[in-house]
Amino acid sequence: MTDPDLPESEPGLAFAADVFERACASREVIQTVTGRWGTLALAALAEGPYRFSALRRRVDGVSERMLSQTLQALERDGLVDRAVLTAIPPKVEYSLTPLGADVASRLVGLIELVESRMPEVIDAQSRYQAR
Amino acid sequence: MTDPDLPESEPGLAFAADVFERACASREVIQTVTGRWGTLALAALAEGPYRFSALRRRVDGVSERMLSQTLQALERDGLVDRAVLTAIPPKVEYSLTPLGADVASRLVGLIELVESRMPEVIDAQSRYQAR
Repeated sequence: MTDPDLPESEPGLAFAADVFERACASREVIQTVTGRWGTLALAALAEGPYRFSALRRRVDGVSERMLSQTLQALERDGLVDRAVLTAIPPKVEYSLTPLGADVASRLVGLIELVESRMPEVIDAQSRYQAR
Repeated sequence: MTDPDLPESEPGLAFAADVFERACASREVIQTVTGRWGTLALAALAEGPYRFSALRRRVDGVSERMLSQTLQALERDGLVDRAVLTAIPPKVEYSLTPLGADVASRLVGLIELVESRMPEVIDAQSRYQAR
């Protein structure tokens, strides 16, 4: 969203994304990043580069097709680098870009928070079921 | 996941969630929290309590049904409180629990990061399209 109050000559300021606006491009990026497999793929790549098949084993339960689509979206948005390494047979390695590493570290923080607070979540779920 | 190496007598330690395991309950919670509308509902409620209709206006584009399902899942997991205020007609207000506030502040950090780096994302998307 461009704020009409900001002068167009200041490109750094004239660009203001607002994820609450349905048409804002940032919403789509947030959804790639936080999507079912985007979160797990980024969190796995925060551990280090992965080849496709190893990443698929790490992200337990993802199909080949879904992981491939997820990585393509993350590569398109500049969060993941795909490198073809010279070898026989050629190896393809996925790693985080600097932007991807920043995003992934936030996601890992979120995951660690939720993992550590699961006893509270499970208590809440039991109380909710018992109502 | 219970780690067999940890003594069962230490309840705080015996519980170790691992979001990478497909059967771990934490994965479902992460997916509620980071889901299409979960993220936006939590980020909106980080601004303060909302009544249903005001929240629906804030989360531009969400249907009544999807917002209602999202809030129900967040309430079940102990992230959102639903309070019926005595008034004629009765008012229903949604707010974050302390756990919900912790989760929401991580999400808001993630959203702000993505919003601020959108020029980089858009550059990456243009390069990807041009290949």
